[in-house]
Amino acid sequence: MPLLGLLPRRAWAALLSQLLRPPCASCTGAVRCQSQGEESLQVAEAVLTSQLKAHQEKPNFIIKIPKGTRDLSPQHMVVREKILDLVISCFKRHGAKGMDTPAFELKETLTEKYGEDSGLMYDLKDQGGELLSLRYDLTVPFARYLAMNKVKKMKRYHVGKVWRRESPSIVQGRYREFCQCDFDIAGQFDPMIPDAECLKIMCEILSGLQLGDFLIKVNDRRIVDGMFAACGVPESKFRAICSSIDKLDKMAWKDVRHEMVAKKGLAPEVADRIGDYVQCHGGVSLVEQMFQDPRLSQNKQALEGLEDLKLLFEYLTLFGIAEKISFDLSLARGLDYYTGVIYEAVLLQTPTQAGEEPLNVGSVAAGGRYDGLVGMFDPKGHKVPCVGLSIGVERIFYIVEQRMKTKGEKVRTTETQVFVATPQKNFLQERLKLITELWDAGIKAEMLYKNNPKLLTQLHYCESTGIPLVVIIGEQELKEGIIKIRSVASREEVAIKRENLVAEIQKRLSES
Amino acid sequence: MPLLGLLPRRAWAALLSQLLRPPCASCTGAVRCQSQGEESLQVAEAVLTSQLKAHQEKPNFIIKIPKGTRDLSPQHMVVREKILDLVISCFKRHGAKGMDTPAFELKETLTEKYGEDSGLMYDLKDQGGELLSLRYDLTVPFARYLAMNKVKKMKRYHVGKVWRRESPSIVQGRYREFCQCDFDIAGQFDPMIPDAECLKIMCEILSGLQLGDFLIKVNDRRIVDGMFAACGVPESKFRAICSSIDKLDKMAWKDVRHEMVAKKGLAPEVADRIGDYVQCHGGVSLVEQMFQDPRLSQNKQALEGLEDLKLLFEYLTLFGIAEKISFDLSLARGLDYYTGVIYEAVLLQTPTQAGEEPLNVGSVAAGGRYDGLVGMFDPKGHKVPCVGLSIGVERIFYIVEQRMKTKGEKVRTTETQVFVATPQKNFLQERLKLITELWDAGIKAEMLYKNNPKLLTQLHYCESTGIPLVVIIGEQELKEGIIKIRSVASREEVAIKRENLVAEIQKRLSES
Repeated sequence: MPLLGLLPRRAWAALLSQLLRPPCASCTGAVRCQSQGEESLQVAEAVLTSQLKAHQEKPNFIIKIPKGTRDLSPQHMVVREKILDLVISCFKRHGAKGMDTPAFELKETLTEKYGEDSGLMYDLKDQGGELLSLRYDLTVPFARYLAMNKVKKMKRYHVGKVWRRESPSIVQGRYREFCQCDFDIAGQFDPMIPDAECLKIMCEILSGLQLGDFLIKVNDRRIVDGMFAACGVPESKFRAICSSIDKLDKMAWKDVRHEMVAKKGLAPEVADRIGDYVQCHGGVSLVEQMFQDPRLSQNKQALEGLEDLKLLFEYLTLFGIAEKISFDLSLARGLDYYTGVIYEAVLLQTPTQAGEEPLNVGSVAAGGRYDGLVGMFDPKGHKVPCVGLSIGVERIFYIVEQRMKTKGEKVRTTETQVFVATPQKNFLQERLKLITELWDAGIKAEMLYKNNPKLLTQLHYCESTGIPLVVIIGEQELKEGIIKIRSVASREEVAIKRENLVAEIQKRLSES
Repeated sequence: MPLLGLLPRRAWAALLSQLLRPPCASCTGAVRCQSQGEESLQVAEAVLTSQLKAHQEKPNFIIKIPKGTRDLSPQHMVVREKILDLVISCFKRHGAKGMDTPAFELKETLTEKYGEDSGLMYDLKDQGGELLSLRYDLTVPFARYLAMNKVKKMKRYHVGKVWRRESPSIVQGRYREFCQCDFDIAGQFDPMIPDAECLKIMCEILSGLQLGDFLIKVNDRRIVDGMFAACGVPESKFRAICSSIDKLDKMAWKDVRHEMVAKKGLAPEVADRIGDYVQCHGGVSLVEQMFQDPRLSQNKQALEGLEDLKLLFEYLTLFGIAEKISFDLSLARGLDYYTGVIYEAVLLQTPTQAGEEPLNVGSVAAGGRYDGLVGMFDPKGHKVPCVGLSIGVERIFYIVEQRMKTKGEKVRTTETQVFVATPQKNFLQERLKLITELWDAGIKAEMLYKNNPKLLTQLHYCESTGIPLVVIIGEQELKEGIIKIRSVASREEVAIKRENLVAEIQKRLSES
């Protein structure tokens, strides 16, 4: 009976409770008699069979959405729209163009770009033709776009859904389908100027969203690799150890160390040397200090990274954001494609208030430099250096929604400005004429889809949906050529000439 | 050598041309010597083998996007944003809430909802877990949402991508991934009020977009079915014949007749009877005429449909749009789920100008009533009546883009208002300080990511990207505490005090 496994828990419980109450003789099996008391296993089995048959005939009885996904209700959408507007307007303030790519790519476009995470890709079924996968981020499609169109220079933003088959943990606001907001600068430029702008953008967005205090951790892949080399990590293990280090924001050092030694075969003394470094974090003075580090200063790559970080801090000071940035040697970033500066923004105070559960949201924005990715798509390997960032909007949506819930804040899910009402029967025609005038003047207006609604029902509708104004038409108003305008909040009513209706409403709306 | 088939034509040509020019003795095979003349088949074969090996090692040499899809460039995005803004603001004007659903649904949610088109669904690969398919439209997910959340009443819009594995015909602007914009009203209301509003919305949007004159064909599924019954179509063939009739806007009657008779086994005299009806179209007078039709007037369903259409025309007259509507008995709509009024908007004049190719765009908006769909998802079959519409935005994007191309119109792909320039070397720091002031004041600003750009390069950048204002800082400005503001269009420059910069720019931008 494999079908039973597919039944939602509630349906299964209902089925079971029916099984324990067998039908009376007159029951057809569809409508069940409530008056029976006697139980019979045989009858119950017959019912089970017939119920199963009914389910097989109506498989749509099972109604749910795919694991790890969710619908976005109008309430969600309002919060999202506000946050995305702020993010996108910041991207536009910095001169970015919009673009979009298909939801899926050729499978081979996406393979070998993400390191250990590649197994989380959603593949499409082979229905004859190409092998396709849903996009896993917006960065690889961007690099593919640049290479395919031979674009050497571009500043773009991209807001879109991506899909990852992760174990969904809905409590933390992580889903298998989620929205990404990326900003990237592609092109050969003088060092660290675009990189610094990316950090400036992250600061502008996180300040603008008023999520509380935040910090941006900065490091450089070349410093990470230089540190690995200096500590004695074999080069073949660089990316694997990098993945382990990336988990330091979720796992304790001892667990990360265990993973590196027991699972990834790193010598314990090498792990301990790494352990000394990853505790270091600080401002530009730590950069200076690392120049003097006996091991790191021997490594050419690490020195290049440190030089760039020094220059970066200079620009960040000019941008007025240096105090938000922390050079942090524990920052590694999991993705394979980074080649230079990397960064990750974390909220310093979870916005916890009395009675609110603490939020473990992790990083809310991240990014870095990836100078080799476009070259992987170019037939001749021509490189286009890139640097960019991704705003973790899903986590931000979650934080803002939780905060609103705690405060008991409600959002309007419509923008309707005026409601057209009547206290009288048989006034549908007049309401339709009136609302047409409003719509045609660009005013957001609603009415009830009833021939003869009660006035109280109409006014209740305005109160419950937050519509500020009501225009009322009845027998007398029609006779006198007037309309009543009522403020829902103050319940005040004024009569105005019918021909002044639109002008009067526009005046009131512009004042409010 | 199956790999060869995968090489893009240009790469294949390059490979062939190299084969005809064998390497000199000092060539490694990677860098090719240009000075050789002698050809040798043996060497050529060796090269082929090594080239193939190189390709196997670098499979990303093949760079393309999935069949039937495309990237949306910044130019595309600007046009889309404008059109979507207009569409969405109309939906909001009519009191709709926004919502979204996942890109994929359980496969069983989507099966048996679309009639003959079901084969065009994209399935996801079975990677363990549920069987999933990409959404095919936004209507079925909406119905699933209503049933799952037991929502009995909702007015919502939904803008999102859908996917169909159709033979792509890119010339006509049809893709396998495309955007839909839907507006739907769910709930039990008095007849034809929401239906009329859907038609009003279609008119507002098509007028607002200024696509030229248009007409909305209206019919009713009950009239279609009643007509079939009256003509002698067996009930088992209703939906199949409906699909054929739906092709009348793309195929001639004789071809549709052939399909019905030869492929779908309809008796020729039955087909001819249908042929008489599907030529009929007109206004409310045709509705009156059909009430008198000897065959139709015998059919209860058809009479119900005609009654509703009569009422609909009454409301459309009050909305001031009756002259845009044509009762058209050839309109059938392909999708299975319609149960009442159906409609489809077509442009009357293709917007052809001298030198422009005529556009065959088909319908630009469509919809109808589907009272049974939500019930298909409800365990107890509870129905929620629905009516809605979908704007064919992809076709509209295409028309607008073609028109702009013909007119030679260019769009700005960024919104940058101010460019920060310098005529002098070593002024990066001052530019960074200046642009920070602008960004922090919410002004959209750019600069070049160069330490020492030439002034001419900077001004050219403004002209080519349409930035209206330049602020210029140099040695002398710095000394005097001033900034020059230059209008790119007039090339006029004025000097202002540095501390007045933001205010002066905001003033200029608000004036323009």
